[in-house]
Amino acid sequence: MKKKTVLTGITTTGTPHLGNYVGAIRPAIEASRDEGVNSYYFLADFHSLVKCHDPARVHQSRLEVAATWMALGLDTEKSIFYCQSDIPEIPELTWILTCMTAKGLMNRAHAYKAAVQENEDNGSTDPDKGITMGLFSYPVLMAADILMFNAHIVPVGRDQVQHLEMTRDIAQRFNHHFGEHFVLPEAKVDESTAILAGLDGRKMSKSYNNYIPLFVPEKQLRKLIMKIVTNSQAPEEPKETEGCVLFDFYRTFASPTQVEEMRQRFARGIGWGEVKQELFELVNAQLAEPRQKYAELIQNPKYIQEVLTKGAEKARVHSQPFLDKIRAAVGIKPLSS
Amino acid sequence: MKKKTVLTGITTTGTPHLGNYVGAIRPAIEASRDEGVNSYYFLADFHSLVKCHDPARVHQSRLEVAATWMALGLDTEKSIFYCQSDIPEIPELTWILTCMTAKGLMNRAHAYKAAVQENEDNGSTDPDKGITMGLFSYPVLMAADILMFNAHIVPVGRDQVQHLEMTRDIAQRFNHHFGEHFVLPEAKVDESTAILAGLDGRKMSKSYNNYIPLFVPEKQLRKLIMKIVTNSQAPEEPKETEGCVLFDFYRTFASPTQVEEMRQRFARGIGWGEVKQELFELVNAQLAEPRQKYAELIQNPKYIQEVLTKGAEKARVHSQPFLDKIRAAVGIKPLSS
Repeated sequence: MKKKTVLTGITTTGTPHLGNYVGAIRPAIEASRDEGVNSYYFLADFHSLVKCHDPARVHQSRLEVAATWMALGLDTEKSIFYCQSDIPEIPELTWILTCMTAKGLMNRAHAYKAAVQENEDNGSTDPDKGITMGLFSYPVLMAADILMFNAHIVPVGRDQVQHLEMTRDIAQRFNHHFGEHFVLPEAKVDESTAILAGLDGRKMSKSYNNYIPLFVPEKQLRKLIMKIVTNSQAPEEPKETEGCVLFDFYRTFASPTQVEEMRQRFARGIGWGEVKQELFELVNAQLAEPRQKYAELIQNPKYIQEVLTKGAEKARVHSQPFLDKIRAAVGIKPLSS
Repeated sequence: MKKKTVLTGITTTGTPHLGNYVGAIRPAIEASRDEGVNSYYFLADFHSLVKCHDPARVHQSRLEVAATWMALGLDTEKSIFYCQSDIPEIPELTWILTCMTAKGLMNRAHAYKAAVQENEDNGSTDPDKGITMGLFSYPVLMAADILMFNAHIVPVGRDQVQHLEMTRDIAQRFNHHFGEHFVLPEAKVDESTAILAGLDGRKMSKSYNNYIPLFVPEKQLRKLIMKIVTNSQAPEEPKETEGCVLFDFYRTFASPTQVEEMRQRFARGIGWGEVKQELFELVNAQLAEPRQKYAELIQNPKYIQEVLTKGAEKARVHSQPFLDKIRAAVGIKPLSS
C-alpha cells in the first residue's frame, strides 16, 4: 500500500510561544518521525506577505521559525522541510486554480467575512475598506500548497477546517473538468491536542499578551511562570485540580506519573509557589536543550538555508513533473507535443 | 538616454481576423522593427485560462496565434517574443502584487462589473454567479505582466485603459511601501488605428459573426469580400466615399495614391463588384505571402516552440534577477544574506 502524504503548513509571522508549542509544534514534530507517512513541512512565507508588509520582520520570522522547528527536533531527513517561496510551481499552480475557483467561494471565507464585519461595525461605507486581494484570495494559495503535493491529510486547527473544504471544492471542480489529477485532502483536527492557558487563564495568545515565548532565557521563563494566575488559597489548603490553570499547565508537560503525584499533593495541600517552581523545572528541563540548539542555529543562518534548499530540491522532484502534467491538462504544453 | 520599453500582450484565444490584423497586429508588427525601443511581445496564455477551459483549444490557439505573428513578420530577433507561461517569475510576482492590491480596485474592474450586471439583468439572486476568481483577479496578473519588465509604454485598445490605471495604482502602492522598484507604465491608445468594419458594416467582430479570418484560402477570401454590404446604386451612378463601408475597407489596405484614384472612380461611377474585385486583389496581395508562411509554420510547431523558448530565455535574463530584487524588497531572500 502506498504511504499517505501529510502536509503541515507553518506560519512564519512572529516568534512562537509555549501555546503554539504544545498545541501545534510538538505534535507535528512527533509526527515527523512517523515512518508510515510522507511528511511535508513548509514555511508559509508567501502567506506572511498577506498581513506583514515589513520586510525585516518577514525575513527575521522565516529565520526564527525555521530555527525553532529544527531546534525542537523536526526530522528533516525523514520529512521534506522547505520554504513555500522556494517552490516556483506553487504560485503557478495558484493561478491555474484561480481560474477554476468560484468567486462566491472566496466571498464566504471566514477571514474575509470577519474583515467585512469589522468594517461594518466601524460604520465604514466601504465593506472592503483596507482589505487586500491577498486577504481575499489566500485560500486559493493554500489550495495550491496542498494540492501541489497531493496531500491526503492536513493537520489543522478548527479555524482552518473551512480552508480544507475550499481546497476540496477547488480540486473537485478541476478534476471534473480536466480529469482526476488531485487527491481530495482531509483536514485532521486533533481534538485531544492541548490548548495551553496563558498567564491570565485565558487561551495563550499574542493578542491577549498573556504568553510565554518559547525560547525565553531560563530566568525569564521562571519569572513568567511565577506570574500565572492563581486564587488566594493558603498553601496548606487542599486544592481543586479541576479548572486550575496551573494544574492544566503542569499536566501539559508532565508524565502521567508526575501528574498523578501532583494531583495527590493538590489534595493534601500545596503552595502555589511550590507548584510554579516545579512547573518551571519541568518546562525548563524540556526546553533547555532545544533552547541551546536554537541559540546555535540562529547564529548559523547559512546552515538553515542549506537545509531548506535541500528540502526544496526534494519537494521539487515531485512538484516540477506534477505541474507539467497540470499545465498539459489545461492546454499549456510544448507546441511541438 | 536609455531606450524605452514597450510591451504588447497578445490574446491567444481564437483565430485572428482581418479586423484584429489592421487594428492591432499590423501596427504592433511595424513597431517591432523600431530600433529605438526595447520591445516585448508575449502570448497571454495564462489569461486564456480565465475563459477557456478547453485544453485542446488553449493549445491550438497558442500555436495559431504564434504562427500568425511570425508569418506576418514580427521581428523576433530585435524584439523579445515569448509565452507568458514560460516565465515562472510572472505568477510569483502576481502573488506578491496580490498582497499589495486593494480588493476595492478589483471590485471596480469593467469586466467584473459587466459580469455582475449581466447576472442582475438575468434576475440572479447571486451577483457573482458563474464568476471565477480568474475573471475577478486577472488585472493583477496583467499588472505582473507589465511590471515584470518595467514597461514604459503599453499599446492597448480603449477598453484596456483601466487595466493600465490599475497597474499604475498597484505599482505606486508597492513603490510607496518598498521603494521605487517599478516603472509606472503608460497606456498608448492609438486613436488613428483603423477600425475595420465587418461584412455587415458593423465593427468586425467574432461576436457579430461578420468577420473575415486572416488566413482564409484565396477563393474564400474573395467570396467573403464579395459579401460586404453595399447599397443598391447602379454601377454608373456616382458614389459617396463618405460612410461607405467598402471604401473604408479599401482605404485600410491601399496606398494613398490608390485611395485617391479610387475616390475619383467613385465620383465618376463604379460598380460595387468591380470595387470588391480590386479590394480582394489588394488584400490578397498583402496576405498571400504571410498566408503561405503561416501554412509552413503551422506544420512546424517545433520551430515555433524553439523561437518562443529562445524568447523566454531572453526575457528571463531580466525577470530572474528583477524578481530576486522584488522578493528581497518584501523580505524573502536567502536566510544567510
